[in-house]
Amino acid sequence: MSSSYHFQSQSYAPSAPEQPPYSNYHHTSSSASSSFPPGTPHDVIRSFQMVDRDRSGFIDERELQQALSSGFHHFNLRTIRFLMFLFKSPNLPLTIGPKEFAALWSCLGHWRGIFERYDKDRSGKIDPLELRDALYGIGYAVPGSVLQLLLSKYGDGSGRRVELGFDSFVECGMIIKGLTDKFKEKDTRYTGSATLSYDAFMTMVLPFLVSYD
Amino acid sequence: MSSSYHFQSQSYAPSAPEQPPYSNYHHTSSSASSSFPPGTPHDVIRSFQMVDRDRSGFIDERELQQALSSGFHHFNLRTIRFLMFLFKSPNLPLTIGPKEFAALWSCLGHWRGIFERYDKDRSGKIDPLELRDALYGIGYAVPGSVLQLLLSKYGDGSGRRVELGFDSFVECGMIIKGLTDKFKEKDTRYTGSATLSYDAFMTMVLPFLVSYD
Repeated sequence: MSSSYHFQSQSYAPSAPEQPPYSNYHHTSSSASSSFPPGTPHDVIRSFQMVDRDRSGFIDERELQQALSSGFHHFNLRTIRFLMFLFKSPNLPLTIGPKEFAALWSCLGHWRGIFERYDKDRSGKIDPLELRDALYGIGYAVPGSVLQLLLSKYGDGSGRRVELGFDSFVECGMIIKGLTDKFKEKDTRYTGSATLSYDAFMTMVLPFLVSYD
Repeated sequence: MSSSYHFQSQSYAPSAPEQPPYSNYHHTSSSASSSFPPGTPHDVIRSFQMVDRDRSGFIDERELQQALSSGFHHFNLRTIRFLMFLFKSPNLPLTIGPKEFAALWSCLGHWRGIFERYDKDRSGKIDPLELRDALYGIGYAVPGSVLQLLLSKYGDGSGRRVELGFDSFVECGMIIKGLTDKFKEKDTRYTGSATLSYDAFMTMVLPFLVSYD
């Protein structure tokens, strides 16, 4: 059986994008900053601290939306909840601490780099072919039928050609990458096929389902 | 390997709930009515025709929301889109015709019966234990960890105990039933374990992902 996805040796380590520092913000040594992983860029720490006004060390969804607006994009709350579910600590309520924030920021920087590289006409939108190329470029050769199924969720329902802004692109990318990576963990011999127990199947899939409000 | 889900012989054929007829509505023989499956109750046909004002034979999401309000519940648009994706014809735009409407109505009637049976305290809400019992009652023995993962998507993020209204209950039920049924199709010997190709895995899962707007 041949595999539909590629297993390139290409590293998928997320890289933090470079951000301008917030010139009016003076770094303080709060308890939150001490929990950031060593080497976290100062502007990431500052973005967190600017929204974590009560210095609790945790931020909720609106604070996260605000923090990410400064560095990336004003994500809609649905995307924010999707990101929180993917990045929050398991078995904890839906909040993001310094470690999760640093990981999320770094990951978004990586996706922004991909978005900019494949948005060849600089339209600020990724079309289906650009999405396919982008995923292929990072090692995911996704069958056209699978991409079509995913993209059908992003249109207005008319069947017209879909174009993805950055937030939908991030969602699509993380869904494909996340599900494919989970599948690959079970396909240790890279045959393109995996044997899953019912529990493992459900546990793999449910985190990617809709984030409700 | 033992199976986590049951395979009761119990039929899961959806049954149409009884609805009072709309006394002010006079049945007309439009082209839409002729496409309803034989035996479709008149009130179902009437509900469709009342919202299909242009007699196109297809209704969009707001018309579906209105049609279902009369018989069931004022579903929020997220649930409506989720239902449309599950019931629409494959490879067609996101619209619902008479056949799909009749199937959806019948299915919702079935879920309403379950909801009422397991909402033992008549609170209008289903709690996690009632949900587990309801799913078990229709033949789905879902592991606690799987239900917990699903329900974590429905809370306010605080980790507090979740209670499901009818629309969230319908979504949860259809997600569990839908994914489990798809898994069972691949687990033909009922071992609780299935071998899936990557394409099959993705194609099984993606229809249950968030319905975007």
